[in-house]
Amino acid sequence: MTYCVGILLEQGLVLASDTRTNAGVDQVAIAPKMHVFEQPGERLIVLLTAGNLAITQSVVNLLREQLNGPEQGSHLHNVQSMFEAASVVGAAMRSVHARDGEALKEHGIDFSASILVAGQIKGEKPRLFNVYAAGNFIEATADTPYLQIGETKYGKPIIDRVVKYQTEMMDAVKCVLISFDSTIRSNISVAMPIDLMLYRTHSLHGNCRQRLTEQDPYYVSIRKGWGEGLKAVFSSLPNPDWSAS
Amino acid sequence: MTYCVGILLEQGLVLASDTRTNAGVDQVAIAPKMHVFEQPGERLIVLLTAGNLAITQSVVNLLREQLNGPEQGSHLHNVQSMFEAASVVGAAMRSVHARDGEALKEHGIDFSASILVAGQIKGEKPRLFNVYAAGNFIEATADTPYLQIGETKYGKPIIDRVVKYQTEMMDAVKCVLISFDSTIRSNISVAMPIDLMLYRTHSLHGNCRQRLTEQDPYYVSIRKGWGEGLKAVFSSLPNPDWSAS
Repeated sequence: MTYCVGILLEQGLVLASDTRTNAGVDQVAIAPKMHVFEQPGERLIVLLTAGNLAITQSVVNLLREQLNGPEQGSHLHNVQSMFEAASVVGAAMRSVHARDGEALKEHGIDFSASILVAGQIKGEKPRLFNVYAAGNFIEATADTPYLQIGETKYGKPIIDRVVKYQTEMMDAVKCVLISFDSTIRSNISVAMPIDLMLYRTHSLHGNCRQRLTEQDPYYVSIRKGWGEGLKAVFSSLPNPDWSAS
Repeated sequence: MTYCVGILLEQGLVLASDTRTNAGVDQVAIAPKMHVFEQPGERLIVLLTAGNLAITQSVVNLLREQLNGPEQGSHLHNVQSMFEAASVVGAAMRSVHARDGEALKEHGIDFSASILVAGQIKGEKPRLFNVYAAGNFIEATADTPYLQIGETKYGKPIIDRVVKYQTEMMDAVKCVLISFDSTIRSNISVAMPIDLMLYRTHSLHGNCRQRLTEQDPYYVSIRKGWGEGLKAVFSSLPNPDWSAS
């Protein structure tokens, strides 16, 4: 499993992915799921991947190879909009499906993959897409300014309660870390470290990228403060006065 | 979808189910998912059902008809242990599978059903089981004293944080209602009213059974207090001091 989330804010983008990959419970490893395509001053495009690792790594490799391919082809360094970028990622997904889909089917393996495509290209605002395994995609809007892939449920309620398009970036970061904490506690196939990227609107380069380990002092303080805070709120609420005797 | 949860406490059992049933988004109705088999002073057995309504209603009907069947047969009013009760429910599940399984398969419909079987029979402690579609089952233990069926993820973190086997019954009730609130907010196919049953160990009758509507004053106060409390805890936690400029 995997957990990735992208939040589209007026101030920019907050992007995060876990790093655990597993094939069965007895084959567990760390693999990055955040892939950055950057031309400072021109564009920053970030991919967050979930699903079958062989598929998503193939897609990312195809996209990297396209950058050095024939000049007339569309790729992530020459597309003129994030919509086009999502189309290019979708097309790469379809190429991998054309190559591997039938063989996977014969082995009873789902063609499961989804990729968040987030970023900004000069001349546009920051945008955020979710590209599905079929290569089609949806875009986040100011009404619901986030997209999740992978193990999405445990970490969703806190985002729903807190995040809006106008939310301050550092509040959104705090919320994302709480969302990861809830997910990591509940699903053993999602795990630290967390790759995190903050992007400020119109900066056109990756502003703050870091990998948070379990020992990161800020993550530790959020984890502890949130857990203790929840218990305190729980205790402060009244019990029902129904008799059950 | 559905959400049902059963908690096994030293003090007894807390059992709850939502009441929404739907076949597609354009056919939504209320159906009880809590079914009580009671012989006051002798036994209380409660079934909470999730999955295909035609299957679970058939199982419950079979179990009711067995009560008036030939005397030598096992049924929920003559079994000597909750383990036997779970076996009887599992056998009823298998009967329905034998009758309907093949036809459902032909129509591409999963045989999806699960049933929590909770209660106490004189001479035993209260026990709690989860009977699967295949008729096999697991039992809750003091280490993880709860079982959920249906839409289980949204409402699980708060139970994990708060409930232990030694938890006071009314604290567990409060926790169950918060768990339902989180689930109902996130999944439109889980909805009020909530059927709730509290059972005190060794009382051998259903002690407090009620249906909570959206207007129930206690539920409203919990819902409001929890939402406001979460936001207050969130605000009180520090933001990261990373620059993202």
